[in-house]
Amino acid sequence: MAGLVPAIHVFYADYKQDVDARHKAGHDAGENVMSSAVSPLAPTNVPDMPEIAGVRLATAEAGIRYKNRTDVLLVLFEPGTTVAGVFTKSKCPSAPVEWCRANLKSGKARALVVNSGNANAFTGKNGRASTKLTADTTAKAVGCKAGEIFLASTGVIGEPLDASKFAPVMASLNERAQAGDFAAAAKAIMTTDTFPKVATATAKIGKAKVTINGIAKGAGMIAPDMATMLSFIFTDAAISAPALQALLKDGVTDTFNAVTIDGDTSTSDTLMMFATGKAKDCPKIARASDPHLKAFKKALQAVLADLSEQVARDGEGARKLVEIVVEGAASKASARKIAMSIANSPLVKTAIAGEDANWGRVVMAVGKAGEPADRDKLSIWFAGIRVAHKGMRDPSYDEAKVSAEMKKPEIFLKVALGMGKGRDRVLTCDLTKEYIAINGDYRS
Amino acid sequence: MAGLVPAIHVFYADYKQDVDARHKAGHDAGENVMSSAVSPLAPTNVPDMPEIAGVRLATAEAGIRYKNRTDVLLVLFEPGTTVAGVFTKSKCPSAPVEWCRANLKSGKARALVVNSGNANAFTGKNGRASTKLTADTTAKAVGCKAGEIFLASTGVIGEPLDASKFAPVMASLNERAQAGDFAAAAKAIMTTDTFPKVATATAKIGKAKVTINGIAKGAGMIAPDMATMLSFIFTDAAISAPALQALLKDGVTDTFNAVTIDGDTSTSDTLMMFATGKAKDCPKIARASDPHLKAFKKALQAVLADLSEQVARDGEGARKLVEIVVEGAASKASARKIAMSIANSPLVKTAIAGEDANWGRVVMAVGKAGEPADRDKLSIWFAGIRVAHKGMRDPSYDEAKVSAEMKKPEIFLKVALGMGKGRDRVLTCDLTKEYIAINGDYRS
Repeated sequence: MAGLVPAIHVFYADYKQDVDARHKAGHDAGENVMSSAVSPLAPTNVPDMPEIAGVRLATAEAGIRYKNRTDVLLVLFEPGTTVAGVFTKSKCPSAPVEWCRANLKSGKARALVVNSGNANAFTGKNGRASTKLTADTTAKAVGCKAGEIFLASTGVIGEPLDASKFAPVMASLNERAQAGDFAAAAKAIMTTDTFPKVATATAKIGKAKVTINGIAKGAGMIAPDMATMLSFIFTDAAISAPALQALLKDGVTDTFNAVTIDGDTSTSDTLMMFATGKAKDCPKIARASDPHLKAFKKALQAVLADLSEQVARDGEGARKLVEIVVEGAASKASARKIAMSIANSPLVKTAIAGEDANWGRVVMAVGKAGEPADRDKLSIWFAGIRVAHKGMRDPSYDEAKVSAEMKKPEIFLKVALGMGKGRDRVLTCDLTKEYIAINGDYRS
Repeated sequence: MAGLVPAIHVFYADYKQDVDARHKAGHDAGENVMSSAVSPLAPTNVPDMPEIAGVRLATAEAGIRYKNRTDVLLVLFEPGTTVAGVFTKSKCPSAPVEWCRANLKSGKARALVVNSGNANAFTGKNGRASTKLTADTTAKAVGCKAGEIFLASTGVIGEPLDASKFAPVMASLNERAQAGDFAAAAKAIMTTDTFPKVATATAKIGKAKVTINGIAKGAGMIAPDMATMLSFIFTDAAISAPALQALLKDGVTDTFNAVTIDGDTSTSDTLMMFATGKAKDCPKIARASDPHLKAFKKALQAVLADLSEQVARDGEGARKLVEIVVEGAASKASARKIAMSIANSPLVKTAIAGEDANWGRVVMAVGKAGEPADRDKLSIWFAGIRVAHKGMRDPSYDEAKVSAEMKKPEIFLKVALGMGKGRDRVLTCDLTKEYIAINGDYRS
């Protein structure tokens, strides 16, 4: 896909063989991919994840909900680590989201605890008590203040989270934590994900080489087993908390905020970034506008773009990754709204699942966005082939050629509005019967 | 469903037997209902449709797209008939929508021509030429001005509409037109609808008895065969065009504008109302605020509510009709936004398809609406059973009882926000694999 930075790679060694098998089986037979199988859109590059100075990780089986798999992650940070975060815009956020928001003000982090299996969302006073108990338990084991502990939970919502289950494993987690185990960390936070999501990049700040590692999870926005989007970024750069916050906020605009699976917003969406400052000879950066950050910003953008694309690639039931570019809009914001209207349209998504270059539905989605548009200036391309031009079907387009392109796993859809210079890009996936099966064919 | 006025009935005699069979087969076996079969949610009352003084109708096979079925409807109005209309908010409306908007200013109507099979949308200059040709052809046959002809088209979009196909049937349509044939009219405008949609009511204006008849079509908002929502209301009351427009605009707020199938907005949605003024002894009404209109307003509301509920009952792939009431919101507008957020959430809709009272997803949909809400004041009921209370699962609710209710074809979902006195209600349907099949499993 355009925009995917080639230098960024993905690690999911244990799943690689299964991916290859699915790629073949899924594409050959065209059958529904089971949600338990790896997405046919899973990336195929398998890089190693380097260590990050000042970051140690450990995972354990706390038995929150799942059996025979890790479900809790502890990440330890050296003193001096700064932290930034962006969270769900939901008016009904989870207890951990409220906890993190409140503690972000200090800008200091010593540990991150993430569990899967229970989201601790819509759990009322119990939810607040659970976050406090988790933070207290962790602070005691680590030897820091509870306010320096950050929390995220993903899993069923509305069920009380039994935070007492963390205590038996916390001391061991704290002792076993070691540098570099990001692959295991990405696995411990999975719910309906079909593959762990990891990305890495390096950059220079002055003469110092710094590393950025990221992990993520997410498949639907919220799902039976709660596919909340969670992502954590770690770096050994030395960046102040306010600068880190500005970098992160800027970074999500065209990455995580430009990805949609089903338009539904989790109560728990969380993206946090931690900077240990332990990279050798790294100058301390106070402001996001510091020119030393040029390469770092680019590398951060690449990690965020990679991880968020992986989220789209693991959309529930997805068989096709869809890149939507809207250009010629009145503004970038207008282009974003139109692109999201297309990306969230069930009729566009089902047409793509049916391998149909149905530009009529794209017109519909442009029209319903409510943004400036003129039917008679509109042009639409599928896979680079113009199918509609100036308000009419393009008389010269080759249906057979478009049909062949629509069978591919990656679909590039472009809309030109002819209204102005606004341009934007979003990623989504198709809407298949498997999405309905994952989200409808069960009784909780 | 609450809100359905019992005095209003539905006519679909030819389909009744099939409905009964589907009701039995679909509900017994739980299998997917094919889109060609009648929706299991189709109404079962079968009233006769009365004549409307000053209205004559005829249908014909113009061969626009379908074979062996009627696809064009001509409705003739006596001189003096007033007209009002509300249309899609799409920024890319169809040519007939633009035609009607432009000609509505005169407030006078002599004929309505509706075709199915081709929407004449996104057809550029050809589209404008087609509407003009259709209007000219009709005006010549009827003997009136082209500007007194109103048009609506539904069907595929982006294909030029060959309006020359209307000429051979227009003279015959004009000659054959007769009072009362509303059932045939409702059938001629169907696309992916599984049953024709008709409703009727009477009211007194002063001492005069007036009748309101309505027909509608619509299943998805826009679909392979283009399930645009079209509806036409006819009355023999004597109401000025401006008053009629005000009544119609007011009437749609809690009816057609409170129904959603998939959140997608057609380029062609059209609701028009025609008043012939031919009811015996009917006083002429100039203003919508005239107290004589009290009973008429109620009857109109009932017809609009009935027709719009039928649209939800015929939602593509629908197995369940879902009524969503939001109360305790900051305002009615806020309640509407939250209700629509719930109604359009793929995760809520798939949960209902799965017969799961998944209130966690309702919380998610409330949260993402962006309206004032407080998790800890939120209560949720399925089928009158409170499943969540004050931000937590209701500890007293009986899961078995809720599960039994969720198996029924009509689901009532209530949300209380505890923020204010705003209340609203919307109708939708569930999201099933059949929706994906109808919209995805084909190559156009």
